[in-house]
Amino acid sequence: MDAAGWIPVSLGILGLVSAWIVYGYVKRFPEGEGKVVEISSAIHKGSMVFMRREYTILIVFVAVVAIFIAISDLGLNSMYAFLLGAFCSGSAGYIGMYTATKANARTTTAAHTRGASEALTVAFFGGSIMGLTIAAMGLFGLGLLYLYFGSDPHSAHAIHGFGMGASSVALFSRVGGGIFTKSADVGADLVGKIEAGIPEDDPRNPGVIADNVGDNVGDVAGMGSDIFESYCGSMIASIAIAATLSESDLGAQNSLMFLPLALSSAGILCSLAGIILVRIFTSKSAEVALRIGTIGASVIFIGAAAFVVGWVGVDMSVWGAVLIGAVGGIVIGMVTDYYTSGSPIRKIAKGGETGPATVMITGLSVGMQSVVVPLLMLCTIIVVASYLAGLYGVGIAAVGMLATVGMTMAIDAYGPVADNAGGIAEMAGLGEETREITDSLDALGNTTAAIGKGFAIGAAALAALAIITAFIETVTLNDPEFSLQINNPIVLAGMFLGGIFPFLVSSMTMTAVGDAAFDMIKEIRRQFKEIPGLLEGKAEPDTERCVDIATKAALRKMVPPGVLAVAAPVVVGFSPLGPEALGGMLGGALIGCVLLALTMANAGGAWDNAKKYVESGNLGGKGSDVHKAVVVGDTVGDPFKDTSGPSMNILINVMAIVSLVIAPLL
Amino acid sequence: MDAAGWIPVSLGILGLVSAWIVYGYVKRFPEGEGKVVEISSAIHKGSMVFMRREYTILIVFVAVVAIFIAISDLGLNSMYAFLLGAFCSGSAGYIGMYTATKANARTTTAAHTRGASEALTVAFFGGSIMGLTIAAMGLFGLGLLYLYFGSDPHSAHAIHGFGMGASSVALFSRVGGGIFTKSADVGADLVGKIEAGIPEDDPRNPGVIADNVGDNVGDVAGMGSDIFESYCGSMIASIAIAATLSESDLGAQNSLMFLPLALSSAGILCSLAGIILVRIFTSKSAEVALRIGTIGASVIFIGAAAFVVGWVGVDMSVWGAVLIGAVGGIVIGMVTDYYTSGSPIRKIAKGGETGPATVMITGLSVGMQSVVVPLLMLCTIIVVASYLAGLYGVGIAAVGMLATVGMTMAIDAYGPVADNAGGIAEMAGLGEETREITDSLDALGNTTAAIGKGFAIGAAALAALAIITAFIETVTLNDPEFSLQINNPIVLAGMFLGGIFPFLVSSMTMTAVGDAAFDMIKEIRRQFKEIPGLLEGKAEPDTERCVDIATKAALRKMVPPGVLAVAAPVVVGFSPLGPEALGGMLGGALIGCVLLALTMANAGGAWDNAKKYVESGNLGGKGSDVHKAVVVGDTVGDPFKDTSGPSMNILINVMAIVSLVIAPLL
Repeated sequence: MDAAGWIPVSLGILGLVSAWIVYGYVKRFPEGEGKVVEISSAIHKGSMVFMRREYTILIVFVAVVAIFIAISDLGLNSMYAFLLGAFCSGSAGYIGMYTATKANARTTTAAHTRGASEALTVAFFGGSIMGLTIAAMGLFGLGLLYLYFGSDPHSAHAIHGFGMGASSVALFSRVGGGIFTKSADVGADLVGKIEAGIPEDDPRNPGVIADNVGDNVGDVAGMGSDIFESYCGSMIASIAIAATLSESDLGAQNSLMFLPLALSSAGILCSLAGIILVRIFTSKSAEVALRIGTIGASVIFIGAAAFVVGWVGVDMSVWGAVLIGAVGGIVIGMVTDYYTSGSPIRKIAKGGETGPATVMITGLSVGMQSVVVPLLMLCTIIVVASYLAGLYGVGIAAVGMLATVGMTMAIDAYGPVADNAGGIAEMAGLGEETREITDSLDALGNTTAAIGKGFAIGAAALAALAIITAFIETVTLNDPEFSLQINNPIVLAGMFLGGIFPFLVSSMTMTAVGDAAFDMIKEIRRQFKEIPGLLEGKAEPDTERCVDIATKAALRKMVPPGVLAVAAPVVVGFSPLGPEALGGMLGGALIGCVLLALTMANAGGAWDNAKKYVESGNLGGKGSDVHKAVVVGDTVGDPFKDTSGPSMNILINVMAIVSLVIAPLL
Repeated sequence: MDAAGWIPVSLGILGLVSAWIVYGYVKRFPEGEGKVVEISSAIHKGSMVFMRREYTILIVFVAVVAIFIAISDLGLNSMYAFLLGAFCSGSAGYIGMYTATKANARTTTAAHTRGASEALTVAFFGGSIMGLTIAAMGLFGLGLLYLYFGSDPHSAHAIHGFGMGASSVALFSRVGGGIFTKSADVGADLVGKIEAGIPEDDPRNPGVIADNVGDNVGDVAGMGSDIFESYCGSMIASIAIAATLSESDLGAQNSLMFLPLALSSAGILCSLAGIILVRIFTSKSAEVALRIGTIGASVIFIGAAAFVVGWVGVDMSVWGAVLIGAVGGIVIGMVTDYYTSGSPIRKIAKGGETGPATVMITGLSVGMQSVVVPLLMLCTIIVVASYLAGLYGVGIAAVGMLATVGMTMAIDAYGPVADNAGGIAEMAGLGEETREITDSLDALGNTTAAIGKGFAIGAAALAALAIITAFIETVTLNDPEFSLQINNPIVLAGMFLGGIFPFLVSSMTMTAVGDAAFDMIKEIRRQFKEIPGLLEGKAEPDTERCVDIATKAALRKMVPPGVLAVAAPVVVGFSPLGPEALGGMLGGALIGCVLLALTMANAGGAWDNAKKYVESGNLGGKGSDVHKAVVVGDTVGDPFKDTSGPSMNILINVMAIVSLVIAPLL
């Protein structure tokens, strides 16, 4: 097994090399000329301003937490793991943002000069760099820690710090980024479109670059950090559960501890295979190519997993857990796709005939209904996986769901590249034909984004569940009397307490968007007033300053929910209520977070697409009363799907991983 | 104790007699003349049509369930208790509806001829009949069962059937009634105001009586059955928990079993005292009178409870549980009042300046934030009560919260009487001065309704919690191995499964309002078309038919969520997943129901009052753009606060009581 221990690290490095090669391939495509390059480089520069500003504050935060960890009884090893986790997630996000904003103009130019198939190639490969980097960084970092600490179940605890580092980055990128995205969007639209009367995406608007940056922030850096957190969380939880199983029918303890990494190692190879499959099929329709890539990667992985389980020397029943996890992820993603397209969105649009109130009610009702199948699927995964392989099976099911994350994330990051490409084509005035191609790529991007969002929620839920299970097992190992019975009043009170968090944080983040947008509005108004000739197109707006201000406002607003998520487990865990209340709290928060995440994401997505459905000429089309009504739905849906909803994934994972980290101290 | 056993029954009878005396007192006030009587009698007749139609179907439902119970292993005793529970709740609802719709015109006339103080007296006493009847019927029914089955902990199980009977009625009155209320409201407004262009509450509109009937259905029969269910549920749960405590430090088992009834017996006397206090202080402002009555009843009760606990021979620590429960109920009610008035509603109204989307976001954010204090309060109650008196303390805290239900419900039922009185004054054209008085009574009614709603949610949550605890203890008694650990995958899967119900049922009931409204719309359109001279005021509309159709549609739409609530515990409990999954499911459903109930009730209430705030001349007043925006909020809030939100109370209580009833069979 000693030589085998190097496999994850090696495959992590291989993944990074592949990402580098893909980046070289994308760079070879011509960037274009004139306005295309100009706009694209403004978006790129804006994104880098955002990342710089965000990471400056993130580094301070990470440093403070690192000191706390170092001086606590957790010790230096946990601190190293924490720093490594933050570094791996942070650099993956940076690389993803850097390359995605390099690929957008190249996609536009490919669509303009070489047609749909080539454009898809650039957009997809642009996104796949992020996918590969996420998978590679996770595998590399965790693999390294496993080499150092994994051989001994007692020191393996330090690995948990890695998850906490990943969660810290996710908190900034996903929650802070979510507030940034929507406040930039609202600010730019409100002053530009309504007050100054200039069209959307007009380069004179100082906020328009921030708006475009926001698309990348949300769906590249934000989504990436979210998935990274779940990906590493599922592996960490499985390793932690295995570390409590000194005797098990499933296999030797060190085999059980190594299996999650081995599975993910196979997963990154399958993701590469999936990416190659997409390349092969781009000559067919884009939809077919992406579908073959996704399904293909999963199918190959499920097969490969059977081999890996046998090779590591673990009982084959564990493979069943891998299977149910992998299939479950796809099912949850497809349900999201159903609820954000097809008959539900037509029903919402039709509701617009009797005004915005009906649009709201129908959309909320669709969102609430959409929780049913994903939750039933999660129940099935839990029951089947634990029947096959106990609690360890639940962790492994999460690993199975997330193993081909390289491919899943590639498809996610493809979305904003295609979206940006369309925006650039429109702003640069490249004509009907080009826009038709980018529009079709963009439409497909919306579908993949919907599937990706559903998948991310399912994965986050299962990863959090696995981490919570690991937390309980770890506490039980130290205190065999520890028991989390629902009829224990302390556990029960903890559950009620936990239920508060998702609702409170949703409320906070929704309000934050409005408040942060206000700072942005003030700045755009100031520029229109103080920069002479701006509105006439004779002067340049200070777009960087807008990005900077929106970033600052978003990060400031991120602090209260962030502190809440990090501090709550510590406060409750060390309070007289103790770990029993904390265990109940995690349970209550988990249920609440999953339900709200699904409701908000799907209601938001459905409202968005209902608006697009009307705008494409149905029920009166643009400018009709129905259109006005569905625009209201879309505006409410924006913070739902891009700020509060995604925050739920982070909230529960942060709470869970912090609990797991402090578990030995309780 | 044998003679003491007759106390609850006797006090139940005393309560009924008091209600009868109050009714006689209300009847002595002059009904008025001309249009006042005409409109009032139409509302009264409509209400009776609704009750008749509803109860016809209810009887069939009750008969079917009774047969199932009789042929199951639960036996005939459970069936008798079930029938008695349905009878007591049903007749309380009928009496309440009957008398409330007799008091409305008398309130109008008192306001017209004798001034504010007299009008308050009539409205309040009209509502207090419902309050007294609820408390009396519960005490009488449960007292009777206790006399027959309570002496032996083994036969005491039959008493649970009473709760299930009460829940069946609540399902029809609160869920079906909730759908009725809002579909009648929407239907009447849409065809009358928008299509036919006649003002609101115009007697030519065939749907207007159904709309007014709806107010009583929601806040008298619906709220009454909800509170009745919680009131009896808390006593049943405490008795059931006591029945599992054959040895306890708190006192002899039969004392512990009798205490809930003894406390409620004291409670009905304190409610009577509260009602008398209101009468004494009506010469002061109405607000002061109602406040003194409510707080007074609670304070007297808390004192009396100390005496009762000592007299029954139970440890005085149990009195602490009574205290925390009684105080908690008041706190939760006051939080609801805060979130549906004052600064939150001004913030929502201000949001209207940037359109309906901001109104929606702000309102949802207020609703979500409003869960914090009530849930913290529930946590506190659980922790303190169980610290003082174990799980029995949790049940007793619920009893303490609900003991003065006679007074609380009196204040709730006062609301629709005052509301109707205002409507009648407006329709009959009784002039500025009268309307000013009824308006002030109505405004006060909104505050009391808000407090009452919050209280009802808190009480339902605590009662359901107590019932769930009783369920767990009962199963554990039969199977000492039974354990509901959160890290047991079956329990966990159950929790996820439970989380589905509140969201699915909310989605179903929201959609149901729209669908049921459609039947109503068709009928109103038909009447305007087919009855010659209706629009000119020369012919009478067929208002009864409208009530009948809306009732039918509402009851039809009530079936799927109703069946779901009743069947789910049975299906899961007897499935291979068994009682462990059922226990987890109840836990998950409880958290979800409480959170959604609070969010929906408070967001809905806040939107309603934000609209009223604008309509009273703020931010541009009626007809302004801000007004249009807040009207959208109010329209979304209607099914939130009057249909889906209240359904949550019933959903969790039905699921809990069904589980408790089938517990011995599992």
